[in-house]
Amino acid sequence: MRRTIFNAEHEDFRKTLRAFIEAEIVPNYQQWYEDGIFPKDLYRKLGDLGVFGIEAPEEYGGAGIESFKYAVIQAEEVMRAGVSFGGSGVHVGLCLPYLTKFGTPEQLERWMPGFISGETMFAIAMTEPGTGSDLAGMRTTARKDGDSYILNGSKTFITGGVNADRVIVCARTAPPREDDRRFGISLFVVDTSSPGWEVGRKLDKMGLRTSDTAELSFTDVRIPAEDLLGEENQGFSYLGQNLVGERLGIAVDAYAQAAAAVQFAVEYTKQRQVFGTTVASFQNTKFELAACQAEVDAAQAVVDRAVEAYDNGDLTPADAASAKLFCTEVAGRVTDRCLQLHGGYGYMNEYPIARLYADTRVTRIYGGTSEVMKLIIAKNMGL
Amino acid sequence: MRRTIFNAEHEDFRKTLRAFIEAEIVPNYQQWYEDGIFPKDLYRKLGDLGVFGIEAPEEYGGAGIESFKYAVIQAEEVMRAGVSFGGSGVHVGLCLPYLTKFGTPEQLERWMPGFISGETMFAIAMTEPGTGSDLAGMRTTARKDGDSYILNGSKTFITGGVNADRVIVCARTAPPREDDRRFGISLFVVDTSSPGWEVGRKLDKMGLRTSDTAELSFTDVRIPAEDLLGEENQGFSYLGQNLVGERLGIAVDAYAQAAAAVQFAVEYTKQRQVFGTTVASFQNTKFELAACQAEVDAAQAVVDRAVEAYDNGDLTPADAASAKLFCTEVAGRVTDRCLQLHGGYGYMNEYPIARLYADTRVTRIYGGTSEVMKLIIAKNMGL
Amino acid sequence: MRRTIFNAEHEDFRKTLRAFIEAEIVPNYQQWYEDGIFPKDLYRKLGDLGVFGIEAPEEYGGAGIESFKYAVIQAEEVMRAGVSFGGSGVHVGLCLPYLTKFGTPEQLERWMPGFISGETMFAIAMTEPGTGSDLAGMRTTARKDGDSYILNGSKTFITGGVNADRVIVCARTAPPREDDRRFGISLFVVDTSSPGWEVGRKLDKMGLRTSDTAELSFTDVRIPAEDLLGEENQGFSYLGQNLVGERLGIAVDAYAQAAAAVQFAVEYTKQRQVFGTTVASFQNTKFELAACQAEVDAAQAVVDRAVEAYDNGDLTPADAASAKLFCTEVAGRVTDRCLQLHGGYGYMNEYPIARLYADTRVTRIYGGTSEVMKLIIAKNMGL
Amino acid sequence: MRRTIFNAEHEDFRKTLRAFIEAEIVPNYQQWYEDGIFPKDLYRKLGDLGVFGIEAPEEYGGAGIESFKYAVIQAEEVMRAGVSFGGSGVHVGLCLPYLTKFGTPEQLERWMPGFISGETMFAIAMTEPGTGSDLAGMRTTARKDGDSYILNGSKTFITGGVNADRVIVCARTAPPREDDRRFGISLFVVDTSSPGWEVGRKLDKMGLRTSDTAELSFTDVRIPAEDLLGEENQGFSYLGQNLVGERLGIAVDAYAQAAAAVQFAVEYTKQRQVFGTTVASFQNTKFELAACQAEVDAAQAVVDRAVEAYDNGDLTPADAASAKLFCTEVAGRVTDRCLQLHGGYGYMNEYPIARLYADTRVTRIYGGTSEVMKLIIAKNMGL
Repeated sequence: MRRTIFNAEHEDFRKTLRAFIEAEIVPNYQQWYEDGIFPKDLYRKLGDLGVFGIEAPEEYGGAGIESFKYAVIQAEEVMRAGVSFGGSGVHVGLCLPYLTKFGTPEQLERWMPGFISGETMFAIAMTEPGTGSDLAGMRTTARKDGDSYILNGSKTFITGGVNADRVIVCARTAPPREDDRRFGISLFVVDTSSPGWEVGRKLDKMGLRTSDTAELSFTDVRIPAEDLLGEENQGFSYLGQNLVGERLGIAVDAYAQAAAAVQFAVEYTKQRQVFGTTVASFQNTKFELAACQAEVDAAQAVVDRAVEAYDNGDLTPADAASAKLFCTEVAGRVTDRCLQLHGGYGYMNEYPIARLYADTRVTRIYGGTSEVMKLIIAKNMGL
Repeated sequence: MRRTIFNAEHEDFRKTLRAFIEAEIVPNYQQWYEDGIFPKDLYRKLGDLGVFGIEAPEEYGGAGIESFKYAVIQAEEVMRAGVSFGGSGVHVGLCLPYLTKFGTPEQLERWMPGFISGETMFAIAMTEPGTGSDLAGMRTTARKDGDSYILNGSKTFITGGVNADRVIVCARTAPPREDDRRFGISLFVVDTSSPGWEVGRKLDKMGLRTSDTAELSFTDVRIPAEDLLGEENQGFSYLGQNLVGERLGIAVDAYAQAAAAVQFAVEYTKQRQVFGTTVASFQNTKFELAACQAEVDAAQAVVDRAVEAYDNGDLTPADAASAKLFCTEVAGRVTDRCLQLHGGYGYMNEYPIARLYADTRVTRIYGGTSEVMKLIIAKNMGL
Repeated sequence: MRRTIFNAEHEDFRKTLRAFIEAEIVPNYQQWYEDGIFPKDLYRKLGDLGVFGIEAPEEYGGAGIESFKYAVIQAEEVMRAGVSFGGSGVHVGLCLPYLTKFGTPEQLERWMPGFISGETMFAIAMTEPGTGSDLAGMRTTARKDGDSYILNGSKTFITGGVNADRVIVCARTAPPREDDRRFGISLFVVDTSSPGWEVGRKLDKMGLRTSDTAELSFTDVRIPAEDLLGEENQGFSYLGQNLVGERLGIAVDAYAQAAAAVQFAVEYTKQRQVFGTTVASFQNTKFELAACQAEVDAAQAVVDRAVEAYDNGDLTPADAASAKLFCTEVAGRVTDRCLQLHGGYGYMNEYPIARLYADTRVTRIYGGTSEVMKLIIAKNMGL
Repeated sequence: MRRTIFNAEHEDFRKTLRAFIEAEIVPNYQQWYEDGIFPKDLYRKLGDLGVFGIEAPEEYGGAGIESFKYAVIQAEEVMRAGVSFGGSGVHVGLCLPYLTKFGTPEQLERWMPGFISGETMFAIAMTEPGTGSDLAGMRTTARKDGDSYILNGSKTFITGGVNADRVIVCARTAPPREDDRRFGISLFVVDTSSPGWEVGRKLDKMGLRTSDTAELSFTDVRIPAEDLLGEENQGFSYLGQNLVGERLGIAVDAYAQAAAAVQFAVEYTKQRQVFGTTVASFQNTKFELAACQAEVDAAQAVVDRAVEAYDNGDLTPADAASAKLFCTEVAGRVTDRCLQLHGGYGYMNEYPIARLYADTRVTRIYGGTSEVMKLIIAKNMGL
């Protein structure tokens, strides 16, 4: 269906981005995939391209565009090329809102130039070993000590955790209150070159191989008080505020993955010969791809509507949960069916469909599992 | 999600309609359901309410509103009340576009007043026993005989066929051409009181009990030439033109059924006690309903986007096929899960969920089966 | 796959039964279906055929065969003919085990001859309005009064409740104990011609139209003490004992429905012409039917294994729950897909696939819903 | 359900195997997984254990047991330990039947001792780049040249292809006949140390990392005529004969994977704390696992029945296709749901569920895709 959310500027951006991906990423992607990590160098190129500054405030060198639409275009272009932007999604999609919403002018002055140029890559560390979606149960602590805080504990599943220069770390600065176990959590923007900061294992994930995911551990890491983000002890509510955007971002990614999967399967089945004809000419292939396309169309409708609502400040947590739940389920179903149409090649990581299948599996888990999404939606239904 | 397709006028219409349904239909619905047919009288009341004139041209007494949005509101209100409008969907949704698009001013002068007032109910007869979706294979004929045509043959699955006063009948007026088997089909607006017109059995359908569905047979039915709709022999192309609207209408119905199913299940499980608590309080209930809600949200996004596109003249056949395929699949899944949450009551026709489950099953079949939708989508994908 | 559970005697029985169905049921079935009830007369013919005596003890005139295999054959033959045995499933499948297990010789002397001949049809009344699967919460009472009990209360969803001559009624004869809310329930074999026994509405069900399902209400119905079945107050444990057989019976029915659905779809699509070829010749049809067949094969494996285990006294409640859950899910999926292949005819009740689709929906609900099955299985898994 | 296919000897074998796996494989598995290949050394240990000789003929040093049951036990034990036997499945499951069925006594004398001891590991090379399931279209040739054949061409997806000492290679020894394109294919048992034999890339697969999968290419590889397996040009029919066993083997693996997935999820959710309780205590967890268990039970019933039939020589190609289709679909669904219950850990390859999820995906593809299985089943249904 003809889309209505993009204007000419958006389409220009799409063209620029597509050219960049073709020139800079596609030729090297197989190597980076095998290495399991992106070169830091590429982040600087993405910075030069302007990708990190789109939503960043104008006063600090960004374009100051408050819209999710550029993120949609990025997701679509990255997925259709069968590549990834490594930890960039975390840098912009997850970290930037925290910085701009809760950072002081002084902090933004310090952080934003490196953020925008890609010289200072950001990540965020919420989850801890053994706590999963229950963020209030975190055990990492940051004890006040004069002009600084002393950070101890560990985090896991930190996307971009190996490459990051600064990590937004959630830690307990005070015990939970009896009537409010969410009290007492604070956010810090920690320099990863600080003594006591240790990058543990790069985790061996099923997919998303180019976005390095790590365990982090902190032993008496000293954080200058000026790197506290927002108010002390109020961090939990900050987390809640950004989840809408984070989940919309995952919904968008999942939709874009599903759309790319269909594209790959169409291309593959059209050129693939078997029994003297193309795989695409079988009725089963047509029906499978049509069924997938209808799901992708629906996911696009969901995403486009949610993006418009987000840009208008109207997207509720339940809306975001619904969009994430739906789009990630679609992506799971669609990548599975499209992979199947590739036959044995679908199982080979050199084919983008194999990578997509493994990549998309995590979208039903991170940013809050599908089960958590259902709890949010149910609550909103009065259940 | 906050919807953007309705304005204040739409919401006024919704209120009026809701009040009418509560007052005129709900109290009698169980009886009409058992009878398996709507009283003709009700159609006149719907006419008085203005429901039939919304999209009818102003010059013939209608409101001349070219928008699918009122149809969405009708579907939503009818479904949420657990009732139906009998053959009204056919009257307006299927027949009106044929009349306004292909009727001459003289014909519209004759037909529209009765159409708008509900005194002359319309139906459409396309399908024949044994031909299904293959309309070009129809065997009903209309032979030119002086100033009239002589109609012979039979039709089946004619919704509203018992109550209809006028039926748009597709018939062969010439044999197919070698290079175009679609040539030779014409449309007639036949008066059902004509001699030789016979209403066969009212078909015993699984659901949709209040919309009478009939077999029709024609034995030398004489049709005045002035009741030929559009050009002779060009009827097949007319059918193609209206399928977009018909399918969008079915998509809308299916979406509204799914939405109503969730509403019924929420209401039921909240009041239903079992093991000393409500069914709604079980985690399984919450998760099932949340999963259904996310699908309904997606269907709503699909429908709203398609309706906007339709109103702008942008909805392609593949778009409509995609929307119908998706929304009817959603309705199938959602009504099944919501019925399950009703336990044994879900199997009893006095509960609206049981009727919805049976009603919605046909949406994957009529107006072109899901398989036909997939063919259309696949073709549009270049497969 | 070649089946191993049947011997020559079983196959003889199958032949006899098939002939009986063809001669006695098929020609009249459409009428009975429209009437929504079976003629009592037919039950006598089934009795003459020996169907009711197979599992009945030899000393009371039965064949004394302790095997579920004849029930499998009955289900298969009934479903493949597109008919039903009305309330017979309840008579033998549900009621007989109660009678033979808990009936005294004196009672069996009185009841079995009529049971076997079909002159005295039995039903069982457990569920009450508003309690569903929570049997311990029942509110019907039987108060001791001299040599009899006085029955008050009501029951619902009583299959065969209109035609039954004797109904096994569960009622509270004592309040629940603090440590055992299941205590205090007794079973009675009540004569339906007793004063105060009232058959309420025949319920309008989505399917299973020929097995009359009723509400029953009891106002001071006097039950002679000699019609108490088993020990007073211990009835709840009896219910538990028979659920394995009941659920196996439903699993068998569901499997047989799925098998019949595939058979109907194969037959239909092979003769049905569309676009100049048969529906069966489309790859989609082949794939859909093959997928269904694989599920039916699996359901047959489940059923055959469970039946062997049952005959050996090895089938646990969790086994039965697993078989019921699986086979009824298969039947839901398979009847849906096979109906779809029928196009519009699949929606017409004169086609057996339409009736099967509506009939099988209840198998996921009665005899304990799928949700209850999951609870049983989960408990058995140590969850 | 109590299983009936195993006797005391089988259970002894299970115990021995389990102990071996615990002692020899589990402690090293993570390393082998990271290496992406098994040490050849382990194959000798498996040989010493007797695993390779079970089905091998007694006259050549095997146990001569014609039963699939030991293979079932192996699959179950390997999967429940979260490990694999690398290329052993191919060695015994795929290659042995070819050797024993078509090998001459002289050949078996030469090959079986090494086969049984694990010193000579076998693999089989059927698929070629670009032909997939269409084996008759293969392009590898073996030209007669005096007392030998000259092999040229390439193969892909060769499981165990890196470690193998002997590979059964299918090649064209004559062009297809006009009326029989399957004519002209021969099988050779080629020594992988022959000049011109090249192991191409070890393929980077989504899963099955410890079973090395390779591309092979042959440049004028000289094969002594004595290494021709069976009759010249008749090889295609040999392939057909063994597919039943191969597919049963895949069905067994998939079933065992699904069973193991449930076991892992039960263990994980029981120990995993979240929101102050275990994940296993949530109703959703119970329901998900119960639903999975019912599917695993069904897959076990399918497998056990198929294995009995296979041992009796009764398993038809359509039976094997049905079992493979069903069990691999179950494994896909079950591993997906069980992975989800692991949250973020389910995405980490150090957790066996993540490996299972990726491993099982190929079972719907290799040994004939699900689509090919459907064609076989449909044909058997007369479609």
